[in-house]
Amino acid sequence: MELSFKNILVVGLGLIGGSILKTIKELNIPLEVYGLDLDEEVTKKANNIGLINNIDNQLKKIEEDSLIVFSVPSLSIERAFKLIEDSFNDEKVIFTDTFSSKSKLLEFLESNTKVGEKFVMSHPIAGSEKSGLANYNSLLFKDKLVVLSAVNGDKDNKKLDRVKNFWELLGSKVTFLDPEEHDKVFSRTSHLPHIIAFALMHYLEKELGDDVFKYSGGSLESYTRIASSDPLMWKDVAVSNKEAVLEAIKGFKSSLNQMSKLVESEEEESILEYLRFVKEVRDKRLKKDS
Amino acid sequence: MELSFKNILVVGLGLIGGSILKTIKELNIPLEVYGLDLDEEVTKKANNIGLINNIDNQLKKIEEDSLIVFSVPSLSIERAFKLIEDSFNDEKVIFTDTFSSKSKLLEFLESNTKVGEKFVMSHPIAGSEKSGLANYNSLLFKDKLVVLSAVNGDKDNKKLDRVKNFWELLGSKVTFLDPEEHDKVFSRTSHLPHIIAFALMHYLEKELGDDVFKYSGGSLESYTRIASSDPLMWKDVAVSNKEAVLEAIKGFKSSLNQMSKLVESEEEESILEYLRFVKEVRDKRLKKDS
Repeated sequence: MELSFKNILVVGLGLIGGSILKTIKELNIPLEVYGLDLDEEVTKKANNIGLINNIDNQLKKIEEDSLIVFSVPSLSIERAFKLIEDSFNDEKVIFTDTFSSKSKLLEFLESNTKVGEKFVMSHPIAGSEKSGLANYNSLLFKDKLVVLSAVNGDKDNKKLDRVKNFWELLGSKVTFLDPEEHDKVFSRTSHLPHIIAFALMHYLEKELGDDVFKYSGGSLESYTRIASSDPLMWKDVAVSNKEAVLEAIKGFKSSLNQMSKLVESEEEESILEYLRFVKEVRDKRLKKDS
Repeated sequence: MELSFKNILVVGLGLIGGSILKTIKELNIPLEVYGLDLDEEVTKKANNIGLINNIDNQLKKIEEDSLIVFSVPSLSIERAFKLIEDSFNDEKVIFTDTFSSKSKLLEFLESNTKVGEKFVMSHPIAGSEKSGLANYNSLLFKDKLVVLSAVNGDKDNKKLDRVKNFWELLGSKVTFLDPEEHDKVFSRTSHLPHIIAFALMHYLEKELGDDVFKYSGGSLESYTRIASSDPLMWKDVAVSNKEAVLEAIKGFKSSLNQMSKLVESEEEESILEYLRFVKEVRDKRLKKDS
């Protein structure tokens, strides 16, 4: 695979942004590396540990082919863009992101069409509840899926291919989804489980306090793992994908209420039927994927 | 540690019962091993693979000191007891169980006081979504917690010690809880997460069908793992711990609704506060335990 960029600029040096730069370094991918963070101290730290060439948020204009990756919390896209709007050559830039939800990003791109024309949306399905630059990891993207979405049905295959190529060089597998479909699917398979974990931990703390993990033997610890995810990132995900997230919570609650009513009425045969259905479909869907 | 039983009889040869017998064998614990299952074919199979001495459900009376372990689904306790009621010497037997909820068991023991007097309740915090004899595992109890509960405040320490000693020989650590406290705690930390996983899988299947795991990269697979747990066992847990389980679902829904309302109104500061609280307490509780 040939690399079509000479430079990469990562805006937002948290777990994802830091891991992108670390992977480039470890794999000796021939890119000039630049980075900015909304918190300039983080930018300086990234320079100190050798992740980026620039020493602070004062970036010289980059003239050659560049990929600019936004890996900030999704509601910070406008602020993040302001940081870099004079730092690239309009003709030689492609933008991408790493956001878990695309709705608010799309609004921004639709009202900034000159940016939108240069944008391919990315969502690497990789992460950790251990957030921040300190937790970067050069294996974060290896064999992971990255979902690309075109802005408003943009069929510029060359642009898509260049971004696809970039993620593949980091070790990822790339697939495509419309942004609307993306936000619907991930509200169900990712945002909802996170919100459930937040609410479960919230409830358990109120009920058991100190004793939450006293009798659990590890399984509750792992079941609530994602409740330790970055609050700022997840606040933004919930708000920026609000409609789909609320729909998902509502649908989940309907399944939960159904179960709850069966337990209340002790309808043993119906409970058994519900649980057998759930086990059967999960085991079947897993097998299909393996 | 000295073993105070000459015989063990396991009633219910599923994952837990099979693993108890397998561990005894692997660790060369000097016990005569017997087993029965509500399904006689399973009893025969356990004999075939050398786990038990008896060949079917026709058991000769065991005269010497015996531990009888009930590891059937919790609502089958009465049927399980009928299988063995002529098979032991009244004066030389101790009973225990492996149930995740104690309420219905306690009702049975209170109306069968001669059994109740010989009973120490056990709950090994060990298991797997892979149920049944075929999945037995001699490491299932190693370093795991077993919660013992006395029947109606019975303070016969000798009886408790003998059962404690048994689990410690299998490699477990033993702790004590009143049965009412046991059922409350586990309705929160174990039964509720299972019911959430069942309801989540139920909802996701309806929404996404074939595509449930298509974009998840492993995390949703592990988050829904316990939804593949044994339907019969979990039907019984839910029904036998009904009051506490319904209370837990209600409390969890209140935390979920709180989050949902914050998202609906886009109160970003309050969402952030909620998520920071959750992360902070989880990280703190984890540290305390490690």
